[in-house]
This record gives sequence, C-alpha cells and structure tokens, in this order.
Amino acid sequence: MKTGSADSFHLPAGFLFSAATAGIKASGRPDLAYAEAPGGASAAALFTRNRVVAAPLEVGRNHLRSSGGRVRAVVVNAGNANCATGPSGRRACAEVCRQTARLLKIAPRAVFPSSTGIIGVPLPVHKITAALPGLIAAREASAPALLRFARAIMTTDTRPKIASARFPVAHQVVTVAGVAKGAGMIHPNLATMLVYLFTDLAARPPELQPLLRAACDDSFNCISVDGDTSTNDTVLLLASGASGVELRPPSVRKLFASALAAVCQSLAEQIVGDGEGVKHVVSLHIEGARNQQEARCIARAIANSSLVKTAWAGADPNWGRILAAIGNSGVPLDPGRVTLRFGDQVVCRGGVACPFDRLAAHEYLSQPGYEIRIQLGRGRARLRFLTGDLTTDYVHINADYST
Amino acid sequence: MKTGSADSFHLPAGFLFSAATAGIKASGRPDLAYAEAPGGASAAALFTRNRVVAAPLEVGRNHLRSSGGRVRAVVVNAGNANCATGPSGRRACAEVCRQTARLLKIAPRAVFPSSTGIIGVPLPVHKITAALPGLIAAREASAPALLRFARAIMTTDTRPKIASARFPVAHQVVTVAGVAKGAGMIHPNLATMLVYLFTDLAARPPELQPLLRAACDDSFNCISVDGDTSTNDTVLLLASGASGVELRPPSVRKLFASALAAVCQSLAEQIVGDGEGVKHVVSLHIEGARNQQEARCIARAIANSSLVKTAWAGADPNWGRILAAIGNSGVPLDPGRVTLRFGDQVVCRGGVACPFDRLAAHEYLSQPGYEIRIQLGRGRARLRFLTGDLTTDYVHINADYST
Repeated sequence: MKTGSADSFHLPAGFLFSAATAGIKASGRPDLAYAEAPGGASAAALFTRNRVVAAPLEVGRNHLRSSGGRVRAVVVNAGNANCATGPSGRRACAEVCRQTARLLKIAPRAVFPSSTGIIGVPLPVHKITAALPGLIAAREASAPALLRFARAIMTTDTRPKIASARFPVAHQVVTVAGVAKGAGMIHPNLATMLVYLFTDLAARPPELQPLLRAACDDSFNCISVDGDTSTNDTVLLLASGASGVELRPPSVRKLFASALAAVCQSLAEQIVGDGEGVKHVVSLHIEGARNQQEARCIARAIANSSLVKTAWAGADPNWGRILAAIGNSGVPLDPGRVTLRFGDQVVCRGGVACPFDRLAAHEYLSQPGYEIRIQLGRGRARLRFLTGDLTTDYVHINADYST
Repeated sequence: MKTGSADSFHLPAGFLFSAATAGIKASGRPDLAYAEAPGGASAAALFTRNRVVAAPLEVGRNHLRSSGGRVRAVVVNAGNANCATGPSGRRACAEVCRQTARLLKIAPRAVFPSSTGIIGVPLPVHKITAALPGLIAAREASAPALLRFARAIMTTDTRPKIASARFPVAHQVVTVAGVAKGAGMIHPNLATMLVYLFTDLAARPPELQPLLRAACDDSFNCISVDGDTSTNDTVLLLASGASGVELRPPSVRKLFASALAAVCQSLAEQIVGDGEGVKHVVSLHIEGARNQQEARCIARAIANSSLVKTAWAGADPNWGRILAAIGNSGVPLDPGRVTLRFGDQVVCRGGVACPFDRLAAHEYLSQPGYEIRIQLGRGRARLRFLTGDLTTDYVHINADYST
C-alpha cells in the first residue's frame, strides 16, 4: 500500500473538485468547496455527538436517509457554521442544496451540505448561491482541484490537510484520498472536524458505514486539541465505484480498511500538528489499561488538563500534573501502580517520584513532537492518543475570533 | 450577621496563629503556617476526590479518625505538596506531626498536617522541623497573626484570602473565620484548595461534618478556575467552643450554617477572583435545570471549555461557544429551549440567535466581573457558579512553574 500527503497525493477516479470565493470569510480567501461524483457515489457519514447540531448536519442526515445513502455533490462553506440559526438556518441550507441540484438537474437529496465557522450568524445564502454556477463550472478531476477544495474549507487552519493511499487488486488500483480541516474545537467524541474521504471502490452504503466507524475510532477519536467538540463535526466517505473493484471480497475489504485507516490516521496527525497554537505534538501511549474505554478516558483526562498542557508549552518536566490528571480521570486506579516515562526516561515508578535528569527531560520535551508513556498496571489494553500543548498563541487566536 | 473580608475580619476565640519562613519556597517568602486550639477543637474535614492523594491527606485523615475528630494544632507548609513521594513522604509528614506534638507535649494524632506546592519532590522535613520551635513560640491570638497564616499558605496566589462572620446568641457572640489558598488546580470536585475554618462555637465533630459539607457544596463546589482537581485539596473546620455557645439548638445551628456559608462563599469568590491569570470573574446563573446535579454539570462544561474561556479573555460576545459547551455537557437537553443572556441582554432565545448590540455586549464583558444567565427550560433547579477567563497570563504562570 502506498500513502501520500498534501505534497504528493493520489486522486481517486470518478470525482470532480473545485473551490470559489463567495465572500463569506472576512479575509477574502476561498470559502466555498465543491466535490461531485458525476456517476453518483455510495456514502457513509458520522456526525458530532454535541447536542447542539448545526443546520447542515440535520439537512445532510435527512438527505442521506431519503436518498438511501447516494450522493452526487458536496457543497461546503467556511466562515459560517449555520448553527443556532433555527428554522431559517435550515431553510438557508436547503436553498443551497436546491440551487445546486437545479444547476446539476438532480434531486436536492443527492446534495450533501456542510458549514464551518462562527455560530449564531445567519448564513449568507445569496452569496453562496451567486457563487454556485462558477463553482460548478470550474470542477475538474485533478490534484490541484482537490488541493483547492482542501484550502477552501480551512478556518483557522494554517495549511491544507490531504492524505491518500492506494492498493492494487488484480490488475486494477483502488485509491482513497481524504481532506480535512481542524485547528480548534477538536476533541475526540466521534468525528471532531470536517473530513471528506473519496474512494473509487465500488460499495453499497451499508457496507461502508462500519468501516468508516472503525477507521474513525482509531484516528479522529484518538486526538484532542482543546477538549471542545464542535456543533458541525462531520466525516463523509464517498465511494464512486469508478475503479471497477468491488468491496465485497474479504481480501479487498481488509485492504480497503487498512488504506482508509492510513488516510484517517494521517489526517488526524495533520489536524493535531496544525492545532491552534500547538507547538508540541504529544503522543500519549496508554498501556496496561483494563480496556480501550478506560485507556481513552485516561488519555482524555491528560489531554484536557490545562495544567498539563501549559507545562508542555514550557517543555516543563512537571510530571506531577500528569499524575494528578490521571487521578482525576474517574478511572478507579491504584496510583501506586502507575509508571510515567518521558521518552525512555522513567520519571515516576509505582506512583512515586524517580530521580531523573531534568535537563535531558526538558530537552526531550522541547522537541516539536515526542512520546509520553503511561503504564497503569491494570490490564492489557493499550491506546495511542495524539494531543498538543496549550500556548499563549491558542489564547490569542481564540480571544478575538468573532469580533 | 456581620461579615468581613481580608481588610477587616473578626477573630474567633480559642485559637492562636503564627507563620514562619522555613526555606521551602524558592522565593524566600513565609512558607510555614501554624494554628492551635490550646483547649483543643472539634474537627470536620473534606478531602480531594482525586485518586492520587498526597501524604498529608492520608496522615491527616488517620489522625482525625484515631483522635475522634479532636485537633490541637494545624501545621501547613507551602512550596512542596508531599505528593507522589511514597512511604518516605508519609514518614516525612508523620515526623513533622511528631516533632510538633513533642514541642506541645501532646499526642501526634492531635496534629493536622497540610502541604501545597510541587508534586513529586521529597518534603524538606528538616527545614520544617528546624523552623517548628520558632513557629510555635510566635503563636498569638491576633488578627495580624491570622493574616500571616493566610500569607504563608499562598503559592501562586497574589493575595491572602480571609473571610469572617459573626452572629449573636443571647448575650454571647459566635465568630467564624476562614482562610484559603487557591489560584490554580481549582475545580469543583469536593474541596478544591486549602481552606481552614475556625469558630468558637461548641460542637461535637459528627455535628460539624454535615454542616461543612453543605457549606462547601454551595461555595467551593460551585467554582472552577482551570478544571483541575488537586491531589492536596483540604477543607478543615475547627470549633474551639471558646464562645460558650452550643451548636445543639436548631436556632443556633441555622445561624451557624448561614455564617459558615457566608464565609465559604466569600472565600470561594476570593479564590476565583485571584485565579491564575483571571481578568474576568464570570458568574454563571444556570436556571430551569431538572436538578442541582444537572445544573452543576452544565456549569462545569461551560467553565471548562477552553474556547469559552478564551472568548471571555477577549470580552468577545461569541455566545455560540457557550451553546456548544452546553451541548457537550452530556445533559440530554433540547437546544431549542435554551436561552442565553449577557447581563440583561438576550443573545440567544430558544436555541436561536437574537439580534443584539455587539458593542454593548463587548463592553459588558469587558468588566472585571459580570453575569451570564443560562435558561434550560427543563425544570426548576438553579445554581450560581463562579469561574474566570483563560488568559495568556495563565499560560505564562503555568508553562514554567517547576523548572
């Protein structure tokens, strides 16, 4: 299996992409992204677990239900979340879908909408519908077009996030490519951002859903930037079937699951690496947990502790904060069995401080990425979880976003 | 009932206080605090719910159990938490109690120990025992001595926290005074800091415990600075009986409960107001919850959201983040019934954005203290919860604490 990132990625067959500037972002940057499967695509999707759900998620979920999971076009706007906008927000979203469908001469239920940006501001629906004809006219099956799609969905992201993977089946090749936006409000509770995954595999929608869920559990559900779960989180997987390869055979299913996992994992890492204000990407290795749920619970408690995250910002080997966060996780563990390591260096064994080289630890924690190992001594479950530090840049970025 | 704060407070009878510099704090500031009830005192205490518990909490809990809740002396050091220090940490704490007891010619179980500061560093027990004779010799029943006690327990606090209340019973007067330290690792999970409450009321230990718990539930359990619960949190209430007034009669019990609540509430507000980096104290009024637990759960979800807290740092009326945090609380609420107000200004009604004066809202949120009202439309329970913003100062304070 070959994989690729934003610099060099493969394009799945059967998809067209484009982007436009509708004037929603105050910056004047591209803010409208479009993907189309001219022959239609089978879809699977996961949405935020936040109780507050944005209009496009409600509309998109309904469209997938009424179309039987078949999608023809995806329209994403950045700069406005169309959330807490009530019935008029849902009407605005439906209007975007209707106008797109009219131009393509298809049913509105074949259009999948997404929005990301500020909450509680009416969607500038006329700016979007005015940009639609140009957006659709510009669509093309090219890598630069997918890169433009990835750029147009960015909000506070500093760089586009793309990953791809390929695998051969007999004399054919299957490609999976994904784009994502992240940066803030990133917390592992199901999908935690906007992610669009495209493949030229042939599959029915119900076959795709469990594969998508498994891939997300090991990737997007194992990252956290700031502990906040957005109202607009969406992961959409589209399969065009253009490769001519069927998902059905177990061997293909296995290869596809690996390719999908690789793409999701790469996008998840790119999201944390481009997290708002993140200077250090921290890979938490939780070991010796009783089960996955427990391991995830402890990883989240560490990843959501402001005291831990600010210590990381200072490359400060103050491991006591990590131990305290573990103690706050709600898992009924025995602190006397906990061992903590910064890289290879043991700093706490059996819940008790170990003498360690503070300067070496400080240097280790000064790297842009590093590992912290937490052994719990309770069982055999393990988990890798990615998170970042909490810096003054995060505060600057978020202290003045809407005004 | 009269109340007082750090500038003017009342001293309960039957207690002596002092402070000393043992050289534990690198700053060279006073770091050892002492309180004594020469005639002994009845005690009630609450401890952290963190699974990782510091040595002095284990020792203190044992002492209260074996003494039947009678305390003669309290010794608190700042600058070192004596946590994650294993059996030698417990021995170090026991040694401090033993040396104190020897000097006072009492049983070690009558000494209550506390520590606050960095985790995982051995307690410099000889520095403490060397300072004990001077500490005890300096004890006196005076307001300046209590103020010195309050200063010596500070870590990153910028000011001492004291509150008091008095009420008359027949021809006598009962006084309640409390001191606290807070600043960081402040999260409402039982006690969340060090708090010492002194009263000259006469009561048996089992009578005091439920009153202390009730007072803490409405005060220290309704605040959050950074969502982290420390390993050393302790609230201790001592009753000397020196006023001659018995707690027993229901009328006295009611008056005492009010006085205790007032002192705890004042200390809780002082802790949030002096929270690390806090520029705005935010009073969350949760209304229309189904029960107290639900209201607290929603208040904590808001108070622990980095995105909400950074918006507050920028006086940014980005109420969508508050709605998103409410949606993440885990409470199965209907967002369509949620109304949000900044002061008197409604910004979101029935889960939908309302037109509002953004400049006026920005000015309202620029004040050092303000109110945000959240109506849930689910029931009749309500809660007031105090928290603060997340500023670059918080990050600076915590990015380089241990090294």
